[in-house]
Amino acid sequence: MKYLIIGSGTAGTRAALEARKRDRESEITVVSASNYPEYSPCALPFILEGAIPGFGKAIIHPPEFYKKVKVGLRLGEKALKINDGSLETEKGELEFDKLLIATGAKPVVPPIPGADFENVSCLWEMDDAKKIAGLMNNAKHAVVIGSGLIGLEAALALSSKKIKTTVIELLPSVFPVLDPDISSIVQKYLEGLGIEFLLGEKVTEITGKDKAEKVATETREAKAGLVVLATGVRPNTVLAKDSGIEIGEAHGIKVDNLLQTSRKNIYSAGNCTQSIEHFTGKPILSLLGTTSERQGLVAGLNMAGSETEFAPVLNSTVAKLHGLEVGTVGLSTSLSEKFGLETKSAKFTGKHLPEYYPGGKDITTKLIADSKGTIVGAQLAGTGVLERIEGLTFGMKKGLTAEELAFAEMPYTPPLCPTIDPVRIAASMLMRRLG
Amino acid sequence: MKYLIIGSGTAGTRAALEARKRDRESEITVVSASNYPEYSPCALPFILEGAIPGFGKAIIHPPEFYKKVKVGLRLGEKALKINDGSLETEKGELEFDKLLIATGAKPVVPPIPGADFENVSCLWEMDDAKKIAGLMNNAKHAVVIGSGLIGLEAALALSSKKIKTTVIELLPSVFPVLDPDISSIVQKYLEGLGIEFLLGEKVTEITGKDKAEKVATETREAKAGLVVLATGVRPNTVLAKDSGIEIGEAHGIKVDNLLQTSRKNIYSAGNCTQSIEHFTGKPILSLLGTTSERQGLVAGLNMAGSETEFAPVLNSTVAKLHGLEVGTVGLSTSLSEKFGLETKSAKFTGKHLPEYYPGGKDITTKLIADSKGTIVGAQLAGTGVLERIEGLTFGMKKGLTAEELAFAEMPYTPPLCPTIDPVRIAASMLMRRLG
Repeated sequence: MKYLIIGSGTAGTRAALEARKRDRESEITVVSASNYPEYSPCALPFILEGAIPGFGKAIIHPPEFYKKVKVGLRLGEKALKINDGSLETEKGELEFDKLLIATGAKPVVPPIPGADFENVSCLWEMDDAKKIAGLMNNAKHAVVIGSGLIGLEAALALSSKKIKTTVIELLPSVFPVLDPDISSIVQKYLEGLGIEFLLGEKVTEITGKDKAEKVATETREAKAGLVVLATGVRPNTVLAKDSGIEIGEAHGIKVDNLLQTSRKNIYSAGNCTQSIEHFTGKPILSLLGTTSERQGLVAGLNMAGSETEFAPVLNSTVAKLHGLEVGTVGLSTSLSEKFGLETKSAKFTGKHLPEYYPGGKDITTKLIADSKGTIVGAQLAGTGVLERIEGLTFGMKKGLTAEELAFAEMPYTPPLCPTIDPVRIAASMLMRRLG
Repeated sequence: MKYLIIGSGTAGTRAALEARKRDRESEITVVSASNYPEYSPCALPFILEGAIPGFGKAIIHPPEFYKKVKVGLRLGEKALKINDGSLETEKGELEFDKLLIATGAKPVVPPIPGADFENVSCLWEMDDAKKIAGLMNNAKHAVVIGSGLIGLEAALALSSKKIKTTVIELLPSVFPVLDPDISSIVQKYLEGLGIEFLLGEKVTEITGKDKAEKVATETREAKAGLVVLATGVRPNTVLAKDSGIEIGEAHGIKVDNLLQTSRKNIYSAGNCTQSIEHFTGKPILSLLGTTSERQGLVAGLNMAGSETEFAPVLNSTVAKLHGLEVGTVGLSTSLSEKFGLETKSAKFTGKHLPEYYPGGKDITTKLIADSKGTIVGAQLAGTGVLERIEGLTFGMKKGLTAEELAFAEMPYTPPLCPTIDPVRIAASMLMRRLG
């Protein structure tokens, strides 16, 4: 048996290692346009910030590791076309019995004049981050275009290095995966750290002589010794499309619940792949490292003969923006509306510790339920978000209702969390609102 | 309508406040043998340690609060007998339409010669802690008898104040709610802080001239300027028993799923009450502050006309012993055996952060599943326990299996938690063991 995996990222590598665990004999090869073995893209902003000491640290599995577990690794070799039982690459033809497409996602570069200046960069891959690290040495001002998580983490990294940073966002609020009533907490916190936001502003041009010096919107301009483009990513489906593999309505590679594509023995995993949203059953792009890892795991197992289903996703996410944790799981109010789901919500701000224990800090919880009372979304910002988003993720996966949460058993000890948790209070409020 | 509540602790006060919310008109009275309004008993060790500044801080609701919400508060008045529609107390007769028994639990004082020395104390109520605080001023050595959570928290408080502390435990391992393979981590950690343990040792005598000076076991003795008895508690069911109310097989007041006792219109909540264990349906004593709070909530609602069921408990617990977090939910291996439940388990130690992020610390997870693969118990020790025990609590409440956990969606961000969480690895190991 020959397993061929396109992509050396999280999904591709996880699949290769899992297939190897189940099948000690067969030939397993990873071929990748990238020059890097598996590394953590999520680590990059933290390397720029200095919290992780150096780019080498982000490498999860060095080439020697692939060698040790007898997984062939062909880096810097772009796949061109999937034929019947073989893959055409820049360097030749590779045969396969089972193929995995794990080509990831690519940043969307908006058609802004000046976006090609040398001191303008995306922040998606290792080389982007290395480029930004170089630019940071000389910059006094920076502009980040886009205020999704990567944009905000980039802004924090820049601002931590004393670079005066402005974030420009087309939408009227930051961190668009959150509803405005929660993202406003994030904005306020980051403003407190000196980051400036221009919201509801469309970038019209990046100007400068030989390199970017300013970023102009329709109404203003901001100084920029460097510009980070964080305007989103899209699944890298070119190879699949060119090879006649079906692309789904969310613009990712369409797979069944075993992660098989429209062609038998060809699987897809990671950012190039569509997922199914847990509450609506609708196709979505997950674009999370955890989804890539779990899809890689499942694809690896299934290529090696298992029939493990990949479950719909809740897109459970947590971020730590210096002293502020932010979490979200399930649907936001605005995403629910987009899906035509009628919801009610409640929001409560309490302390993450008991009132009597010193050091308690604010945590705001927004809970969203459908008409049956099932919690379909939660957004949290403040201190102590991780533990609550983990609880909510496991509960919501299994149909947790607002009423169940209002009465829910949760662990308690004074130095870590209160007897009556703020999320339970938010759930009581939601329960009453649901009537 | 007259509501009468016996007990001013967590359960009693919560019930009074909840009944008041639902019923603005009726007379609600709390009568209590205690001289204190609601306070947090869990706060007491942290006050002794100095982490919480002063005993006044532990008061959750001062008497003025009861007054404000029009709940009568009769402190220092012991209830003697429940008659038909009235309660006899030391000071007279109080009428009721609905009664709640929330008489809590009492420490078990073992029949050890010398246990009546003035420098020997339990650590259960506010006055116990105040007494210990006084004794700590002069003590250079202390002995804690019993190594349950209260014993360990007491030992930490004493040892934080530079009092050389020895913990004596009858059983061969510390923290008996945990299986020895997890509690050994706790023991080792606390030994590292200078606390000494004498395990599998029966205390025979507390000796001294006018006050305790030494604690003797069958084989050794330890110096003690003060002795803390932390040998467990039992439900305070005297009043209920004397009034003909049924006591259950776990030695707590027996209630139905609405928390009503064997007598109509008489409810029971908190530490005096039996709970039902989630996985076995068997009666157990929960003895957790969170259970008291939730039973008080449900009893208050039901006295005021609701029919809210109190669900079986998983006894989700977390503790922070300085730098070591410990958590448990569901059944231990030894409790499963006691209940005749056949289980398998797996244990894994990983880091609480991604390998590439500085500062990751060990977290050990033990998972226990029944023959169907349902996780019936989890025990964790290390760093990052709270978030994982919250996730497990919500998942296990809803029937989480080892297989589901192995593939589970969990939130991820480099500074807080890894892509492949150690609990998922423990679950994979358990899944393979289950076959």
